[in-house]
Amino acid sequence: MSERYTIGLDFGTNSVRALLVAAATGEEVATSVFDYPSGEKGVILDDRNPDLARQHPKDYLDGTVAVVRDVLAQAAERDGFSPEQVIGIGVDTTGSTPLPVDAQGVPLAFQPEFEDNPAAMAWLWKDHTGHAEAAEITALAAALRPQYLLKCGGAYSSEWFWSKLLKMKRTAPEVFQAAHSWVEHADWMTGLLTGTDNPAQLKRCVCAAGHKAMFNPSWGGYPDAAFIEALDPALARIRKTLPDTAYDVGDRAGLLTVGWAQRLGLHADIPVAMGAFDAHLGAVGSGIRPGVLVKIIGTSCCDMMVAPMTKDIPGLCGIVPGSILPGCFGLEAGQSAVGDIFNWFVGGMRPEGDTHETLTAKAAAMNPGASGLLALDWHNGNRTVLVDQRLTGGLVGMTLHTKPEEVYRALIEATAFGARVIMERFIEYGVAVDRVVNCGGISGKNALLMQIYADVLNRPLEVSASSQTCALGAAMAGAVVAGPAAGGHADFEAAADAMVRVDDRVYTPIPENAAVYDRLFGLYRRLHDSFGVRGHQDSLYDVMKELLALRDEARA
Amino acid sequence: MSERYTIGLDFGTNSVRALLVAAATGEEVATSVFDYPSGEKGVILDDRNPDLARQHPKDYLDGTVAVVRDVLAQAAERDGFSPEQVIGIGVDTTGSTPLPVDAQGVPLAFQPEFEDNPAAMAWLWKDHTGHAEAAEITALAAALRPQYLLKCGGAYSSEWFWSKLLKMKRTAPEVFQAAHSWVEHADWMTGLLTGTDNPAQLKRCVCAAGHKAMFNPSWGGYPDAAFIEALDPALARIRKTLPDTAYDVGDRAGLLTVGWAQRLGLHADIPVAMGAFDAHLGAVGSGIRPGVLVKIIGTSCCDMMVAPMTKDIPGLCGIVPGSILPGCFGLEAGQSAVGDIFNWFVGGMRPEGDTHETLTAKAAAMNPGASGLLALDWHNGNRTVLVDQRLTGGLVGMTLHTKPEEVYRALIEATAFGARVIMERFIEYGVAVDRVVNCGGISGKNALLMQIYADVLNRPLEVSASSQTCALGAAMAGAVVAGPAAGGHADFEAAADAMVRVDDRVYTPIPENAAVYDRLFGLYRRLHDSFGVRGHQDSLYDVMKELLALRDEARA
Repeated sequence: MSERYTIGLDFGTNSVRALLVAAATGEEVATSVFDYPSGEKGVILDDRNPDLARQHPKDYLDGTVAVVRDVLAQAAERDGFSPEQVIGIGVDTTGSTPLPVDAQGVPLAFQPEFEDNPAAMAWLWKDHTGHAEAAEITALAAALRPQYLLKCGGAYSSEWFWSKLLKMKRTAPEVFQAAHSWVEHADWMTGLLTGTDNPAQLKRCVCAAGHKAMFNPSWGGYPDAAFIEALDPALARIRKTLPDTAYDVGDRAGLLTVGWAQRLGLHADIPVAMGAFDAHLGAVGSGIRPGVLVKIIGTSCCDMMVAPMTKDIPGLCGIVPGSILPGCFGLEAGQSAVGDIFNWFVGGMRPEGDTHETLTAKAAAMNPGASGLLALDWHNGNRTVLVDQRLTGGLVGMTLHTKPEEVYRALIEATAFGARVIMERFIEYGVAVDRVVNCGGISGKNALLMQIYADVLNRPLEVSASSQTCALGAAMAGAVVAGPAAGGHADFEAAADAMVRVDDRVYTPIPENAAVYDRLFGLYRRLHDSFGVRGHQDSLYDVMKELLALRDEARA
Repeated sequence: MSERYTIGLDFGTNSVRALLVAAATGEEVATSVFDYPSGEKGVILDDRNPDLARQHPKDYLDGTVAVVRDVLAQAAERDGFSPEQVIGIGVDTTGSTPLPVDAQGVPLAFQPEFEDNPAAMAWLWKDHTGHAEAAEITALAAALRPQYLLKCGGAYSSEWFWSKLLKMKRTAPEVFQAAHSWVEHADWMTGLLTGTDNPAQLKRCVCAAGHKAMFNPSWGGYPDAAFIEALDPALARIRKTLPDTAYDVGDRAGLLTVGWAQRLGLHADIPVAMGAFDAHLGAVGSGIRPGVLVKIIGTSCCDMMVAPMTKDIPGLCGIVPGSILPGCFGLEAGQSAVGDIFNWFVGGMRPEGDTHETLTAKAAAMNPGASGLLALDWHNGNRTVLVDQRLTGGLVGMTLHTKPEEVYRALIEATAFGARVIMERFIEYGVAVDRVVNCGGISGKNALLMQIYADVLNRPLEVSASSQTCALGAAMAGAVVAGPAAGGHADFEAAADAMVRVDDRVYTPIPENAAVYDRLFGLYRRLHDSFGVRGHQDSLYDVMKELLALRDEARA
């Protein structure tokens, strides 16, 4: 049998990427990126409202055609390649990024009267216009359905499905009136490619439904009609269009339609996997399985695990059966800012003459503890385990001699301590961490950060060999829904064994550094709890003194 | 009677200044500054030991001659001026700045064998080589004479008299062996000018003795012989050279000798006042009297009050009868760094393209609370009321949007909050604050800081009209010891009425700013106590949230 390939489609915030992968080996044969032309790097903004962030769905369509055709054209230069060898397609998107559709499933933004109306477009994950609505939903759930909050860390977010729908109903009634249903980008995408986009037959993925729309099998799916009625009676009509079942990425959304096959240059009837969020398929592309913590480290950080079973874990922003891998609970945690904090320091505080590179070089020459500094990494709030956007950054230990590179290193260390809090929360609730695999931009290029993380977590840290693990995970989903008979794989474990690799380089903890960081982490944890945990009382009298003692030891 | 004049001699860290003042009006007729030629800007340093800071006493002599002759020469251009019209001299110096002398009172540094030996020079106030000895003295006093610590804030400092002597004995035994006594710069200076420098007859000022050498009339003067013996038997010999009495600035050290009169171009037998520390005579030159808080705001800040009587006030670094004004307790408090913190931010953190001027301009355009930031001003430790050098700076409230000018303003505000803690401590212990008069470099030139201080303290802030209040205070002491018969004054109250003025400009609190700062100060005080007070427990859970609430209100 000649080689078989699958395609992963990865819809990001600013662009869409296609990756053509050999199903048997994971070899990345061709990749192509299409930058969304609309708005500011693909994002429609509003000067009057910095919370607003939308995308126009036509960018998704144009991008899909462009990148798939491009990878096929690249592969065609490979001896003997034919599009017939493509056996499956997977899709990941950002989320929660829902959009209003009509009774046929067509986005309202495609209707002439709404084409320039941001309310009719896709409400991008980072749109926070619904923050008041989110607080309202949290309060209502706390009163009527406290179980809803247990699966999402205790608070419903402005980034999520119902907050956005309620905001749309209140601020764009004409769009709300015209909307028949409210569909996540991931689901609309797979429905479109497979001709199942009519809301009456659209399959919804458990990843988006479970993590963002309070769907959970334990209470029968989406929030019940009485709850939605209590929230706003007008939403009941939309609630009725949501099905009782949701599907995981091991399920087929359907088969590629003849029309889309022609537009893309593929054959019809190729199976398309259910969609999922980029971070989740990034974890799949990094080989997530029980015992493996996958960290996607970039401007922010996503921490993901899967477990065959789990009790509720407080502070996690999602515990959803099947959301990452079929048959397992998907557990999602994260840090609201990582690389963004370093970017703030360099670009916002502007230490003259310094760049990321010079600060990293100088910070790398220091011993742990030598600065006497300790930071809190909450410049963009805390996603896990405190689930509190009303927290901010902190720094203690400055003297008249403190240097920018010392602050820079303290900020890196703070994000490492934040990562350790998350890892320890998993372990505390019985989810063992046997390996830690890292992907995302920072993991591949910032050796200082990775070594500090290894020292702070006191674990060997592996790094994904692929720099496009989200698209790779989507391609793996394509291989699984194609199945072994077609040249794909029986399940994600088999797909991972065949298609996922990590770098040879492993970051190994340095014992003497780990010992210092254990002490610093103890201090971090005390600041963390003092500022972050309601009612937690502590005397911080020894914190600065301990930092100075550590400093003096590190410099002796 | 033709006009009468007095001279104030102000010995600083880098230079000595003379000020010739009209005794009846305070008019500043002539001033002259002599930069010390030795070492680095007058300070002998040691690359191997950053704690070391010494001065060579020959700089004091050369400088005295130069600046007095220069002011007389300047005044000579004034119609009818004659040196005979100079009726008194006052002296202030840094401290504790002691130096070893022989049995005749001659500094050992004037002997050829010791002339280049830093241990034989004056041990400048900021010499911290004796930090271990200071801890030893504190521990011994806590065990044997706890009353000694009550008058100096609870801890004996490495900057002070006995720490330095003990350090000298241990590290420079040849100098210690040759030393007959150990004399503060201020006392040596007045002894020299009046021919009373022989240790057997040298008068010691209560300002240095009381604030730095644990002298207090309540226990009979200097620390008793048994205590000194317990500290180190070798010091007993030096202890015996210390008298049982100390004198305030209303006392005469003696009369100018014929030899010194000739060298300076003055007439002999002019009365010379007892010396005092620069900050204390700076307070006198600002018109200190009961009810007046004088703040000398520069790289650090001194806060001084006088009171007819007082109980012990915890955390003050000195409560000494007569140390500032005769007949009153002198109360000294302060902040270890003020301007130094702003200098650190601009020069150490180096926000690109910014200077003090640009940051001040941008910070001045903000509303109180608008940054969401709150800082702790302990970058050089905390002098009052925590008396703890092992405290460091802090900053909370940063977001990904925080700007350098916001941090700069937060640092100014933090020093204002620190100032308020000191003022409230005075008031809490019954020392009423009716007026606040400010002097020192920052008070005259930084209107933003002064307005923030007025808002935070919620008091009108006056500013001394003189930019050289230390030298003015010394000149006032010269007028008092000259007495009214000679054209001087009967006491310091009369001298102040005649010679001290404040600027017309008063910084008046802006009520709405004061209200915001009341809330911010409440948060500052909680961080202050959490990090600074042993055993103080608090939940800081609401601190960051309150800062964000204040920010949102300030920006609304």
